[in-house]
Amino acid sequence: MTLQLKPIGVVHVNLSDEEVKASLKGVEGILEVYEEYVEGLHGIEGFSHLIVITLLHKVSETQRKTLKVKPKRLKLLGLNEKDIPEVGVFCTDSPHRPNPLALTIVELVEVNGRFLKVRSLDLFDGTPILDIKPYTPSRVVENIKLPDWYQKIMEKLREKGFDAKDF
Amino acid sequence: MTLQLKPIGVVHVNLSDEEVKASLKGVEGILEVYEEYVEGLHGIEGFSHLIVITLLHKVSETQRKTLKVKPKRLKLLGLNEKDIPEVGVFCTDSPHRPNPLALTIVELVEVNGRFLKVRSLDLFDGTPILDIKPYTPSRVVENIKLPDWYQKIMEKLREKGFDAKDF
Repeated sequence: MTLQLKPIGVVHVNLSDEEVKASLKGVEGILEVYEEYVEGLHGIEGFSHLIVITLLHKVSETQRKTLKVKPKRLKLLGLNEKDIPEVGVFCTDSPHRPNPLALTIVELVEVNGRFLKVRSLDLFDGTPILDIKPYTPSRVVENIKLPDWYQKIMEKLREKGFDAKDF
Repeated sequence: MTLQLKPIGVVHVNLSDEEVKASLKGVEGILEVYEEYVEGLHGIEGFSHLIVITLLHKVSETQRKTLKVKPKRLKLLGLNEKDIPEVGVFCTDSPHRPNPLALTIVELVEVNGRFLKVRSLDLFDGTPILDIKPYTPSRVVENIKLPDWYQKIMEKLREKGFDAKDF
């Protein structure tokens, strides 16, 4: 079975891919929704946060075969290679995964017709947008539990002055 | 541009579609991950919650053209038709949307190899799974803001004894 999807819009970021990758807190950008889908935005003003689902179009066929990773983001945060466990891609946000879908929670700054100005983007310029959903109270889960390997990473990050949300 | 994705697994629920729809808190079921992707689950035990991205395969081509909706879930919760605003699909969780992708936060109960027993499913039996991600602290957004129309709905639901997370 193969499933077909069509982009409903595109991400605009005025930075190089390398600059986006190097940003810890995400960058500012514009979500452009194509003209034919603009009605779907009716009522979106007033949400402080949105969930954006995109397809990471620069991930290659070979990278899609990746099933285990040492999360690269942790190297960026200064962890030693030896302290980074190798885990399944479904336990991580790695872009290298069978279906390279990204789930990004962005801060909605301003709505100009079909152009949404947002913050906290971790996406490259030109990334196709598949869906936009509101971040509502039902998305907030309190008292989550995390595996030991994940807690150890959080501890090491805290030692380096980061908070858990940076991972 | 058309984007192709392949299911990495399938949802098993021992209930009819109507029973799933009628459930307010979601149902229990099994996420089966196909053999070839099993390595991607390594390290998943210990997460209390997962994010599952699926394709709502029963949504028709016509339903994919929907851009504005009166969220049906609200009728289920007993709201009057006249109190339900018509809003853009990107402001709702409506299954009727250009790319019928669902984002479901499930509670992970048990891992048996490539079979994950979960709770809080709102998906029909046979739904293809596209991706699984861990629910980590970075997914929790505090102090979210919501549009007036959304707050009014929440108020009406509270009058009926529901909490905001039910919407």
